[in-house]
Amino acid sequence: MSKPYVIGIDIGGTNTVFGIVDARGMVVASSSIKTQKHNNINDYIDELYTETMRLVDACDAEGKIHGIGIGAPNANYFTGVIEDGVNLPWATPIPLAKLVSDKFGIPVAITNDANAAAIGEMTYGAARGMKDFIMITLGTGVGSGIVINGQMVYGHDGFAGELGHVIMKRNNGRLCGCGRTGCLEAYCSATGVARTAREFLESRNEPSKLRDIPTEDITSKDVYDAAIAGDKLAKDVFEFTGKILGEALADFTVFSSPQAFILFGGLAKSGDLLLKPLRNSLDKNMMGIFKNKVKILVSELKEADAAVLGASALGWEAK
Amino acid sequence: MSKPYVIGIDIGGTNTVFGIVDARGMVVASSSIKTQKHNNINDYIDELYTETMRLVDACDAEGKIHGIGIGAPNANYFTGVIEDGVNLPWATPIPLAKLVSDKFGIPVAITNDANAAAIGEMTYGAARGMKDFIMITLGTGVGSGIVINGQMVYGHDGFAGELGHVIMKRNNGRLCGCGRTGCLEAYCSATGVARTAREFLESRNEPSKLRDIPTEDITSKDVYDAAIAGDKLAKDVFEFTGKILGEALADFTVFSSPQAFILFGGLAKSGDLLLKPLRNSLDKNMMGIFKNKVKILVSELKEADAAVLGASALGWEAK
Repeated sequence: MSKPYVIGIDIGGTNTVFGIVDARGMVVASSSIKTQKHNNINDYIDELYTETMRLVDACDAEGKIHGIGIGAPNANYFTGVIEDGVNLPWATPIPLAKLVSDKFGIPVAITNDANAAAIGEMTYGAARGMKDFIMITLGTGVGSGIVINGQMVYGHDGFAGELGHVIMKRNNGRLCGCGRTGCLEAYCSATGVARTAREFLESRNEPSKLRDIPTEDITSKDVYDAAIAGDKLAKDVFEFTGKILGEALADFTVFSSPQAFILFGGLAKSGDLLLKPLRNSLDKNMMGIFKNKVKILVSELKEADAAVLGASALGWEAK
Repeated sequence: MSKPYVIGIDIGGTNTVFGIVDARGMVVASSSIKTQKHNNINDYIDELYTETMRLVDACDAEGKIHGIGIGAPNANYFTGVIEDGVNLPWATPIPLAKLVSDKFGIPVAITNDANAAAIGEMTYGAARGMKDFIMITLGTGVGSGIVINGQMVYGHDGFAGELGHVIMKRNNGRLCGCGRTGCLEAYCSATGVARTAREFLESRNEPSKLRDIPTEDITSKDVYDAAIAGDKLAKDVFEFTGKILGEALADFTVFSSPQAFILFGGLAKSGDLLLKPLRNSLDKNMMGIFKNKVKILVSELKEADAAVLGASALGWEAK
């Protein structure tokens, strides 16, 4: 192969991680820069170029890069544009694929971060060999990457797979970042878990370790730590979260009947605290013909790796 | 083409309609038999064979049939089996593809009726040229056929696309035929419309033409007729139905971002009575990035034709 490498870039709200990846999925070199450092997108791309080329030189890979794949929030595979990058410091829309491709002189393909993670999982992780699965990312928000017939689902406009925004509570639901109320994301993200804890603390009188923390400072990590230490209220927060997530996954199953759901991101590491109520709820809410078929798996990839590997896999199809 | 015809067969609860179709999608001959006439599946297939071969002879098509496509309730594309044919008079599972293929000596492919309708619509109807759309069948139940990247979505087990069974009411929902409560089908099918009318008649005191009909005899057609005649309560039933259907379609949109929803079946013919509240509700519930993108279309095919044409299109890929 005359061009045996691809570059994978994961643009997160805080860090941009990038790496040189070979055809077997080995990250031969990687590094990162701060996403927020430059208010001008061109300055950011200049630094990204300089730092990436440093890696390319170190690997003796100049002229050997087949393509660049990028995962970024709200990045549209079809247009190459970041349409509305909520947590990014630049004005949207950003024609990212063109900007990077012009700077590097290499073909670029982009997609959103959850899709990139799904591609990474399919190529190198828990979804190897699966043709039908759904990746659910449980982080600050709830994202998803849907694979059907072995292909990423982009939809007619490139925005498919916003499963964090199905409505789980039609009455009196929580306000979501998308402007509507009752979305899955408002309950089953890390932020949602903290909100649930605050609600429970306010509406109940029972003692809880979480009462030692100023209410507005409570994070999902605090709730996890308290639950692990046996705190009843904190455990109830995970019960509540798992129940809603199970209801949602049961609904998703009737859509594409996936072989597995793969959970990814901070909350996915909560183990049985989340998985047990999730599996109970999934079973209870599942339509008969799908019962006991769908697997719930936790991602096998390290978070940073999954994003870079997934983005890099997209680099092979860049043109 | 040495074998320029396919046979399309639509097995409904009441009638089985079948036709000989050419490569341009012309139904060159068609006929039907009663599905319920034979309690023994082999007798049914014998009659189907005799009547179909009568058409084949009349068209001088013997030896010119490329394949047979069949649409039937709960028919599994992967296994060729009708897994649980609620409204059919034979014990399930039925290895339908094998039985028909053995009898006719021609390759057979089967799928469920909603998928067959979607294939018909994509090949010959309102979805011509679309690669991403969702067919919603509003009949006795609510069925669906999902097309993504130009391919039918069957899921890993062949059962994908049961969109009539997403949960729309998580509390105090109506009992559904699937054994759970709150399913879309319990509200937005023809049966659901009649149930809503009965509920409204019981819980309200206002006059309505529908009070002249014995409550248990009310059908969706009665509700339609009353609404068209200006009956306030009957119109409210359609408002209620359209509102829930709009909420459901907004949720489906975040999944696969289709170009269009295509409505098919009895209720789809209700015109603005259903479409107006549906469009209002869809717009109100749609996530921002999808607003004003998704079309709501009504099937362009005659009901019988869509099923036979859709099933027949599957005959081209039978092997």
